[in-house]
Amino acid sequence: MTAEAIANLLRQVRQGRVGVDEALERLRDMPYENVGFARIDHHRPLRQGLPEVIFGRGKTSEQVEELVRRMLRHGHNILVTRADATMFERVRKLDRRAKFYPASGAIAIRRENKIRGQGLVLVVTAGTTDIPVAEEALVTAEVMGNRVESLYDVGVAGLHRLLGESEALKRARVVIVAAGMEGALPSVVGGLVAAPVIAVPTSVGYGASFRGLAALLGMMNSCAPNVAVVNIDNGFGAGYLASVINRL
Amino acid sequence: MTAEAIANLLRQVRQGRVGVDEALERLRDMPYENVGFARIDHHRPLRQGLPEVIFGRGKTSEQVEELVRRMLRHGHNILVTRADATMFERVRKLDRRAKFYPASGAIAIRRENKIRGQGLVLVVTAGTTDIPVAEEALVTAEVMGNRVESLYDVGVAGLHRLLGESEALKRARVVIVAAGMEGALPSVVGGLVAAPVIAVPTSVGYGASFRGLAALLGMMNSCAPNVAVVNIDNGFGAGYLASVINRL
Amino acid sequence: MTAEAIANLLRQVRQGRVGVDEALERLRDMPYENVGFARIDHHRPLRQGLPEVIFGRGKTSEQVEELVRRMLRHGHNILVTRADATMFERVRKLDRRAKFYPASGAIAIRRENKIRGQGLVLVVTAGTTDIPVAEEALVTAEVMGNRVESLYDVGVAGLHRLLGESEALKRARVVIVAAGMEGALPSVVGGLVAAPVIAVPTSVGYGASFRGLAALLGMMNSCAPNVAVVNIDNGFGAGYLASVINRL
Amino acid sequence: MTAEAIANLLRQVRQGRVGVDEALERLRDMPYENVGFARIDHHRPLRQGLPEVIFGRGKTSEQVEELVRRMLRHGHNILVTRADATMFERVRKLDRRAKFYPASGAIAIRRENKIRGQGLVLVVTAGTTDIPVAEEALVTAEVMGNRVESLYDVGVAGLHRLLGESEALKRARVVIVAAGMEGALPSVVGGLVAAPVIAVPTSVGYGASFRGLAALLGMMNSCAPNVAVVNIDNGFGAGYLASVINRL
Amino acid sequence: MTAEAIANLLRQVRQGRVGVDEALERLRDMPYENVGFARIDHHRPLRQGLPEVIFGRGKTSEQVEELVRRMLRHGHNILVTRADATMFERVRKLDRRAKFYPASGAIAIRRENKIRGQGLVLVVTAGTTDIPVAEEALVTAEVMGNRVESLYDVGVAGLHRLLGESEALKRARVVIVAAGMEGALPSVVGGLVAAPVIAVPTSVGYGASFRGLAALLGMMNSCAPNVAVVNIDNGFGAGYLASVINRL
Amino acid sequence: MTAEAIANLLRQVRQGRVGVDEALERLRDMPYENVGFARIDHHRPLRQGLPEVIFGRGKTSEQVEELVRRMLRHGHNILVTRADATMFERVRKLDRRAKFYPASGAIAIRRENKIRGQGLVLVVTAGTTDIPVAEEALVTAEVMGNRVESLYDVGVAGLHRLLGESEALKRARVVIVAAGMEGALPSVVGGLVAAPVIAVPTSVGYGASFRGLAALLGMMNSCAPNVAVVNIDNGFGAGYLASVINRL
Amino acid sequence: MTAEAIANLLRQVRQGRVGVDEALERLRDMPYENVGFARIDHHRPLRQGLPEVIFGRGKTSEQVEELVRRMLRHGHNILVTRADATMFERVRKLDRRAKFYPASGAIAIRRENKIRGQGLVLVVTAGTTDIPVAEEALVTAEVMGNRVESLYDVGVAGLHRLLGESEALKRARVVIVAAGMEGALPSVVGGLVAAPVIAVPTSVGYGASFRGLAALLGMMNSCAPNVAVVNIDNGFGAGYLASVINRL
Amino acid sequence: MTAEAIANLLRQVRQGRVGVDEALERLRDMPYENVGFARIDHHRPLRQGLPEVIFGRGKTSEQVEELVRRMLRHGHNILVTRADATMFERVRKLDRRAKFYPASGAIAIRRENKIRGQGLVLVVTAGTTDIPVAEEALVTAEVMGNRVESLYDVGVAGLHRLLGESEALKRARVVIVAAGMEGALPSVVGGLVAAPVIAVPTSVGYGASFRGLAALLGMMNSCAPNVAVVNIDNGFGAGYLASVINRL
Repeated sequence: MTAEAIANLLRQVRQGRVGVDEALERLRDMPYENVGFARIDHHRPLRQGLPEVIFGRGKTSEQVEELVRRMLRHGHNILVTRADATMFERVRKLDRRAKFYPASGAIAIRRENKIRGQGLVLVVTAGTTDIPVAEEALVTAEVMGNRVESLYDVGVAGLHRLLGESEALKRARVVIVAAGMEGALPSVVGGLVAAPVIAVPTSVGYGASFRGLAALLGMMNSCAPNVAVVNIDNGFGAGYLASVINRL
Repeated sequence: MTAEAIANLLRQVRQGRVGVDEALERLRDMPYENVGFARIDHHRPLRQGLPEVIFGRGKTSEQVEELVRRMLRHGHNILVTRADATMFERVRKLDRRAKFYPASGAIAIRRENKIRGQGLVLVVTAGTTDIPVAEEALVTAEVMGNRVESLYDVGVAGLHRLLGESEALKRARVVIVAAGMEGALPSVVGGLVAAPVIAVPTSVGYGASFRGLAALLGMMNSCAPNVAVVNIDNGFGAGYLASVINRL
Repeated sequence: MTAEAIANLLRQVRQGRVGVDEALERLRDMPYENVGFARIDHHRPLRQGLPEVIFGRGKTSEQVEELVRRMLRHGHNILVTRADATMFERVRKLDRRAKFYPASGAIAIRRENKIRGQGLVLVVTAGTTDIPVAEEALVTAEVMGNRVESLYDVGVAGLHRLLGESEALKRARVVIVAAGMEGALPSVVGGLVAAPVIAVPTSVGYGASFRGLAALLGMMNSCAPNVAVVNIDNGFGAGYLASVINRL
Repeated sequence: MTAEAIANLLRQVRQGRVGVDEALERLRDMPYENVGFARIDHHRPLRQGLPEVIFGRGKTSEQVEELVRRMLRHGHNILVTRADATMFERVRKLDRRAKFYPASGAIAIRRENKIRGQGLVLVVTAGTTDIPVAEEALVTAEVMGNRVESLYDVGVAGLHRLLGESEALKRARVVIVAAGMEGALPSVVGGLVAAPVIAVPTSVGYGASFRGLAALLGMMNSCAPNVAVVNIDNGFGAGYLASVINRL
Repeated sequence: MTAEAIANLLRQVRQGRVGVDEALERLRDMPYENVGFARIDHHRPLRQGLPEVIFGRGKTSEQVEELVRRMLRHGHNILVTRADATMFERVRKLDRRAKFYPASGAIAIRRENKIRGQGLVLVVTAGTTDIPVAEEALVTAEVMGNRVESLYDVGVAGLHRLLGESEALKRARVVIVAAGMEGALPSVVGGLVAAPVIAVPTSVGYGASFRGLAALLGMMNSCAPNVAVVNIDNGFGAGYLASVINRL
Repeated sequence: MTAEAIANLLRQVRQGRVGVDEALERLRDMPYENVGFARIDHHRPLRQGLPEVIFGRGKTSEQVEELVRRMLRHGHNILVTRADATMFERVRKLDRRAKFYPASGAIAIRRENKIRGQGLVLVVTAGTTDIPVAEEALVTAEVMGNRVESLYDVGVAGLHRLLGESEALKRARVVIVAAGMEGALPSVVGGLVAAPVIAVPTSVGYGASFRGLAALLGMMNSCAPNVAVVNIDNGFGAGYLASVINRL
Repeated sequence: MTAEAIANLLRQVRQGRVGVDEALERLRDMPYENVGFARIDHHRPLRQGLPEVIFGRGKTSEQVEELVRRMLRHGHNILVTRADATMFERVRKLDRRAKFYPASGAIAIRRENKIRGQGLVLVVTAGTTDIPVAEEALVTAEVMGNRVESLYDVGVAGLHRLLGESEALKRARVVIVAAGMEGALPSVVGGLVAAPVIAVPTSVGYGASFRGLAALLGMMNSCAPNVAVVNIDNGFGAGYLASVINRL
Repeated sequence: MTAEAIANLLRQVRQGRVGVDEALERLRDMPYENVGFARIDHHRPLRQGLPEVIFGRGKTSEQVEELVRRMLRHGHNILVTRADATMFERVRKLDRRAKFYPASGAIAIRRENKIRGQGLVLVVTAGTTDIPVAEEALVTAEVMGNRVESLYDVGVAGLHRLLGESEALKRARVVIVAAGMEGALPSVVGGLVAAPVIAVPTSVGYGASFRGLAALLGMMNSCAPNVAVVNIDNGFGAGYLASVINRL
């Protein structure tokens, strides 16, 4: 709830155009819709043309369906992350434009295709097995109105693969780097580009990777200062933040 | 075994009304019933009108059934936590009043409905996926004789959802807050209410949530001093402690 | 900022007694005082008769002095935790009633002695070396208007020491238990009393105590359900929460 | 290979009763039997009347069968731990005396029943769900020739259950205590008895028990000095060490 | 790249064999200067008007002095982080414009004051003790040519302190949030602004904060998707990345 | 580097426009083949007679098949690690020489059998359950052209089993030691041989082995200075590095 | 408090020889002496001829002096562990027989020299730097009436050093093994002897030894089943438990 | 003790040239010298021309002096690691050739300069602050008879610094890479060279580097298969192992 909104409401109360009880009511109800098991935040999409987003894991298919149904009343793009095939079945019945990305479990309903980002978002992975996380980032950034390109399997132990793509790296306005195991790629990319780099540790690896902890710690300690980190496997967060930056 | 009880017994021995061997026997046998694989503690329920409680996980269905059967000889409410459908089948055959809560796996047999708590216990969650843990807290507090209300999906990244419910927060005598991921909600709630806040970290999240460790550490470090923490996913403990406090 | 306070302010705007800009100003400035390096929250003390509290560690002596000076403009008790002798020198010059507790580093300025707690707060320690943490809890609870007693060095490996004090345990309305090493005492105390137990893990121990982590984990896993846990060495938090509960 | 054995062999070489090559051969082959995928150590059983032991988990049923077959050529008791029903099927075909303990997965073939331990080994658990681990300890100690008794579900939050069994505690020459969650029971038992206490943390619990880590750390930090700890869920090790001590 | 190479190029320019623009071009592609114990990267500053940066900790005062001396041959701003008073003494002798920030240990030599950032960088802290980290971020962002404002001590347990500053939050193009303990502030700020949020966990706290680990994990699990995280206490990285984003 | 480029070069050699040596030179500098989801590095095999390697886990069967198909265009040995039976089905259809090792999940296609290693690579395990990891090391070293022997189940608690094999230990030019649980074997072997020892911690064990962490830490702290460590269960890495050393 | 003692007291009450209040009083006061900051447990020494023990670290010199003064009223040996020179000064003034062991910080006052242990306690270390921990074990076992020998610097990377001492190993009835770094020695010793082995991880090492954690985990996972573990650096506990076992 | 040595001795016993007791004596005393607090292993140096090595930390200056004195009786090079200036004073008095390296704390006494390594050992660091660890590796490798070169401050965020030195990388027969923070350099170097790479994580860094843990985990998960890892800051181990490999 912003100070501006409060000031505006106060003015209306002052002018007698809004009663005290109603004002209080508005203050309470304006920003979200209470569905019982969830409170849908229509606030940000309304203001900023962002998509409505549902984190699918841990929710029942019924809950996901109900949330999508209510979101469809507004005109925004809709994104469900970490969904499964059953959820997709239900969502597709609500809107035939729904598209499923099985590697990442993303469901996207694109209802507008306006490009809002200023430049290119580049999604880079260290290995082939990091692609599901990269896909989540890629779909998120696309649904939020960005031009997106990808560069897969350019990990640091075969540096020539990365150096061979320096063109693409130079073109990007924001770079997302997904890497598991030792998570060294963001540091190297960070040293090659002037753009901000969003590092996504992935749970790819085994043994002392401790499900992404090694990559996470590696990225936190990056010696490249233009790197910041999101949660392990959090392709969505990386794609979202890249979009926020790309709109600046 | 309290000092009073010992004093009492000593007096009876002194007066010759109880023999030494018998006294020793009583001292040994009074408080619990030995079922071989378990020792049922009828002590607390007898004294304080608390329910008899079984932690279902790790026990066989036969063990749960046997324990419930013996508890039914007394008149108290019975609560089985972390049970499964098979256990519920057996328990329902023993007492038709048994009710199953599948989200949390709780089985409740309510045999008395006396309200013993002084005020309202409010159960709050950060997200939809925290609801199973909240349900365990809620059922526990109800079975122990409290008025309980809930407030779901009011996490800190959409603060207006929480601020819109300040009425409910103010009404509560004890607040339970279940949150996974960063576990920040108890600090915020703790700053908004004067009541004691029992924080329950949940294993909701992925990656660096490390199955609730991130939420647990967050809550332990809460900058709100009216917050204390129970184990990850321990809805039962939160509901129990809230009841103990609400009876004061 | 409560809904009631907003409603009240709105009413005054409606009646023309408060202008819109002024209302906005009030909404912004009411609850705290901006000192540049800190924002003093006079909110809670004003409303609830709580003391004003400063966490000393990490602040300069100058900062502590300045904060106490401003707090002295109001009539509440003042508590500085984790202070050192130098800070105490400065504070004593501001108010001669200031008292220093060197074991815990607490400074207390008692300006009122009203008993607000309903019953007895009992502070228990497992060993002698846990006393500094217990002292912080004890001073906090006293400054907040509670009757407080202590029971030191009654750890579980010599159970008779604890059982010999069951009288004191029975009298308490809220029990605080500070223990390092294996942190087992809260479970045992929790089984002996009907009161809520606030467990404080301490960093006492060596080796695999990992500066209190062993005690913390032990307490989180307590098999006594009337136990909740605060941060390692957080005597202040335990004393504060005990006071909040004891006022119910 | 002991110094005595070498001295003995040297003497025979000196006297010309054993050739150099043969001596070298013996030095190499004496203590174990090479089965390719394993080297069976007949050394200890031969010398000390100990059972032959196989750790079943991670081995194939074929491997377990082959190892048991070879061990049956000697006259000792045989113990397979962490076995499954399929392994038991194969073992029972080799020797009808084989007995399966499903809770712990132990298979025991008792071919001699000599009591070798001097006193009573007592196996104690904090809860019902710790029984599988206790059973492994109990079977191990029995197969190794000890009188064993058990005391289940006497955890510290209901101290009267433990105190009511002080007779049994006093009778024991060695005590094994299995406990999960906070792992506090060994400290309490250690304070009540003069005997050595072998603590077995179990993976019983959830959340911040971190699969037995909390119990392990708790036991490592025990304030009772007559307590030592074996691995999480290591009932076998506890039973074995108790036997070694009980033979002294 | 040796000093000889630079000398060589300068000679060629002198002789008219290489043009100034071409020389500049080459200088841009020449990667570093080898000082034996270090390789100074003049690359980025030349190309992007960034400052030259030295991480002081772990270097000797002699090394810092030598590096600054070489950097002074170019015209850029110079920043030394984690320096001490002795280092500052030496640096001030090299250039009188050097300024020391004792809270964070930063030394800044401002030789140009061009504003290169598009908007406002806002530095927010949860508490007073987070200020040293915030100061490092602030100095870094200033030296890199940004307008910077700060907002200190607005932690989540006193939410009104933060909500009272929503004006400032709205004005920022990039927000840096430094918080220790539970590290909850970035999630709350992330929910209030549309701008990208760079979260800096600080080592402020004690006990279960584990020197910033709790805050780090909390921030990694932030439920606000416009948040990314840098290393514990890494004010420099936050200020640097904020500058990179603010130049877009 | 596309297949077209290679074809192009071959054409030029055919036409006599490029000499064989020069072609080989160019092939050495051409870095990789982009297959979309992966970039195959033909670089090393071409230069060094190394096999082409695919890490199977996390890849689809289709991806593995496609990668093998492309690799078969060259004449090198091919190794797929962490594969499953389905992958093997597909690979065998491409080349009948493919052989599957079910314990480790390795698939090997041997197309040349040149011995390139100077001496013997010895693979040692502490127990029977470490054999799958050892097998991966063994297959890798064989495919890379080494003579390999193995020594299984010679763990430190039965030292005579190891000492009885000192012949084999002496013969080895490089020793690989795979051990789980306490991971002590590399230290002991390191003390017995003059050769370099590559230690592979395995996830064998339970409880406080924490899936190989205990063994990993043990090996990192080895008091034998001729020991270095690779990732938990990383038989491939051990076999590969042993081959690299054995070629020196 | 034993069942026997209660029975005895009850009998006296029954016979009218002890009043009820007095009995209650005795039950409360018998086993310990309350010194305010500590409760001295004279219980065990009285019954079992054990020494009275003070853990010095974290106590003030005054507290240690006071505790020793009270203990001197009884005739037992006295042991202060983790003491410093100042504490020793005070203790020596109380009793000239006090002896200080600076490596471990132990103070021993031997007032009786009766040998109570049945056999030899052998204290073994992996390296020279483990000697302080070994010394604490050694002093403890001596003060408790055992014959003790030591074997220092026989770590596993030079196995011949250990094998050369097999005589000494064979003679021991109980073996204590102190080792830091990888903590492998107890497994090796456990395989060489039939006696119980008490393993003491030490904080000796650096880097990935994590102050003894690596050694602790290694010992917990020992493949020798006659090994149990005490806390890191806990020489006292090892010496105490060895004494308890050696008295059997 | 090798099988050959035993066979040899047996033969002498057989021939009557060595008595049984004497043989036993030899078996016991041959390989090391017992100094009481330590057992010097002259075994390896005698056989292999290796230096005699003392780990200084945790030893007293007297102990270091005594060990060096005894080692000087043989003709080998002597290396003391982690020593301080006081130790050096004493050592220099014993032999004027002693040289001190203050950055790493190494003391070297070179009494022979024979080159035993086949090729070049290259020591690489990511940053300037890694140099002390690199120095320890360098001195160790030199004392063991290798040609050594170094390449400092070529971390991955400024890749051109490393690529500019590919000549040196190609020349090396064994590469040691010391890196703190994210520890990514070994993966990159491993991809550029065909030689074996020994990775040394350093404790350089702060915050989430957790004293080298991040670098250690990163290196364990290296995607370059020619990399193995030694303990954090273990320059000695890296230098030693490099020498062992370089002699092959």
